[in-house]
Parts: sequence; structure tokens; C-alpha cells
Amino acid sequence: MSLKTPRTTVKRLPKRARHDFETIASILDAGFLCHLGLVVDGQPFVIPTAFGREDRHVYVHGSAVSRTLKHLGDGHPACLTVTLLDGLVLARSGFHSSMNYRSVVILGHATPVTGPEKTHALEVISEHILPGRWAEIRGPSSKELNATAVLKLPVSEASAKIRTGPPADDEEDYALPVWAGVVPMALQAGSPQPDERLTAGVPVPAYLTRRPS
Amino acid sequence: MSLKTPRTTVKRLPKRARHDFETIASILDAGFLCHLGLVVDGQPFVIPTAFGREDRHVYVHGSAVSRTLKHLGDGHPACLTVTLLDGLVLARSGFHSSMNYRSVVILGHATPVTGPEKTHALEVISEHILPGRWAEIRGPSSKELNATAVLKLPVSEASAKIRTGPPADDEEDYALPVWAGVVPMALQAGSPQPDERLTAGVPVPAYLTRRPS
Repeated sequence: MSLKTPRTTVKRLPKRARHDFETIASILDAGFLCHLGLVVDGQPFVIPTAFGREDRHVYVHGSAVSRTLKHLGDGHPACLTVTLLDGLVLARSGFHSSMNYRSVVILGHATPVTGPEKTHALEVISEHILPGRWAEIRGPSSKELNATAVLKLPVSEASAKIRTGPPADDEEDYALPVWAGVVPMALQAGSPQPDERLTAGVPVPAYLTRRPS
Repeated sequence: MSLKTPRTTVKRLPKRARHDFETIASILDAGFLCHLGLVVDGQPFVIPTAFGREDRHVYVHGSAVSRTLKHLGDGHPACLTVTLLDGLVLARSGFHSSMNYRSVVILGHATPVTGPEKTHALEVISEHILPGRWAEIRGPSSKELNATAVLKLPVSEASAKIRTGPPADDEEDYALPVWAGVVPMALQAGSPQPDERLTAGVPVPAYLTRRPS
């Protein structure tokens, strides 16, 4: 199924565009952060936040008094963007220099999540970031759930944009004595730093020692 | 000088907020990508793009036919956000789990850059990403400059938000046998991959072999 609409049709460099759900889901699932877009009094705001995808929707969460979540939960239009920087593309000219990346832009309206689905949504967000951790940590209390807002945004109107591969220089520039190629880039995890008050004998969990795929 | 206004006053967790130019500039300078926010027919759009800072303004560039740049260049309100993910903060409860990050949100109006400043702006963006490279690559032709749009956004109304350090758990949760701490995260460069058509004898430039600071 294509998630293409007139608003999510990529006009610039359409050969980089994808609108199939599988591609969009795979990019969402590889991202740690999204950027939420909202409009207040005509002014756009772009706010970074955690998220999690399940099936054909995305959950975001925050404080119950967050202005961003309140505003979007009231039904104002939302945009949710996830961007993965995969490399710097060094061409022989500035004009053809670029970046390799995967990005997704979702448009739509978010709805507040309440009742038992709220705890489930928090689990989805947690498992999105560190699969396996939710089962180990203390679950949310009623007080914590009341202090937390969760929104759900359908993944129904969306586009992906992907650039891969080497630079594409003008033919005459290939003769220039300029280094050209790709510098791969990736968000990488360092060694886990245990909390000073860690209970003695608690091992580093397996989900922290797996290498990133 | 504070860049705080009613619109850039951080309401949630104000102890994480900064409004001084030096902090904001240092976060901007450490980012490879920004996310541009714009509003079209009431719908927010959030678009990732390269950028560069010089003094108290930020440049972004793109195709001269880019709808995003045309719209913002027409004086519609803009938001430019830069986010650096520094770590996953693993608390003993989901509620206190968090991320370490540095982010900047700039609000304002962009103006199109023309004339000699356009080439200068492209240099600023290039040097922001890879300091030292601009002097080596082929500079822009008139045709390329005509095909490129550049916008300038003042860094005059902005906020930064920073979280650092270990998790802050509820006192009774410290006794739980749950691993807690921080997993550092950073965008890292891999080994440069030379283009297949690289001119023989061209060495890997020094700016690609320096370790990230």
C-alpha cells in the first residue's frame, strides 16, 4: 500500500522517494529520535523526542503538562520526521557534494492514548529504544501514568527519502586531483557506564552488549 | 546576551534550559544536520537538511526550485532545530528513563541570500561539515549558483535544552536488582571509502583522518 498523497509526494529528486509502508517502517524502526512539528499561532515548532512504532502507528510520550503534546492531542495537524545520517558524500565540486541518508516524513493528526493502551504504548516506546529492557524495569504507577501524556499518530500519509552510493560528479571533474568518496556515518553506542548506586552483582544486560545490526 | 523570549522560554524542566548565545552556538556547531520547520496551509512540515553557522546567523541551502526554501524565503515563519543525542539514560523505572542530549530551537524569519554572499554561505555550510575541504574542491559555477537557493536565519530568538548525567531514580527504586546507568551515544565517522574513479595518487585528506573532538 502506498502512503503517497499530494502532500507527501516528493517533488525534488523523486528518484530518491519511497512511499511503501515496509520501507517507511524500516527507517522508523532504525531511529532513536524523531522530530515533531506543530504550529502554534502560525509559528512552526520542531521538537525532538523519543518514539516507538507498532503496526501502522507511532507513539510519542511526554509530561502531561507538555504544551507540545497538549496542542497535538487537541487535534492540530502534526508532522513527525525521522532522519538517519548514513554518510558524507564528498564530490569533486561543492555542488555535487551531498549526504547519504534515510528519512521519513509522516503527516497527520495525533490522538491522546488513555486507559490500558497507555502502559502498552510506553512499553512500545521503551522496546523501540532498547528491546528487552521493559521486562526488567519497574512498571509505571498510577501516579506516573497520570503524569504522562501519550499520543498516537497513524502512519497513513507519509514519504521516505533515501540517498545511497558514491558521489555523482560532472564528467569533466573526475580528472581533478581532489579526494572523493563517502565517509560513512552512524550513531554508535559506547561502553555502558554503570550508575554509582548500582546494586552490587547486577550484570550488564545482554541487550546492551549486543552489537548494533 | 540572552536569546530568551516568551516563545523560546522552556516551560518543561527549565533547569535544563539555556538561552545564552555561546551555549547555543556550541550546540549548532557540533551538529551535522538540522530539521527545518515550516507551515503550508496550516500543516507543519519538518525537513532535514545541512546547515552552517557564522556569527549570529545560520545558512541553509538547497535547490532553487525547493518548495521548502521558496516558502521560507517568502518570509513565512521558520523553526530550525538541531539535536545531538549523547546517551541513553537507563533508570530503574520506565518513568525516570531518559536520554542525554543537547538541542537548540531557533525561531524566526529567513531571508534569501544573493550575490557574492551566496558563494560565501555555501563555503560556510561546507566548512561546517568538513573544515578544510572547501579550499580543495571545485567552486560553484554561475549556472550552479543560479540553481541553488540559500537562506539566512538570524540566531536571535532561540533556546537550548541539555540533559547530562546519570539517571535520577526514586529513592526506593535504588534497591532494585536492575542495571542502571548511561549508554553513551555519538554520531561517528567510519573509514573513508574512496570513489571508484578517484584520480590515482590523491591521498586521503587530513580533515578526514582527524579524530572527532
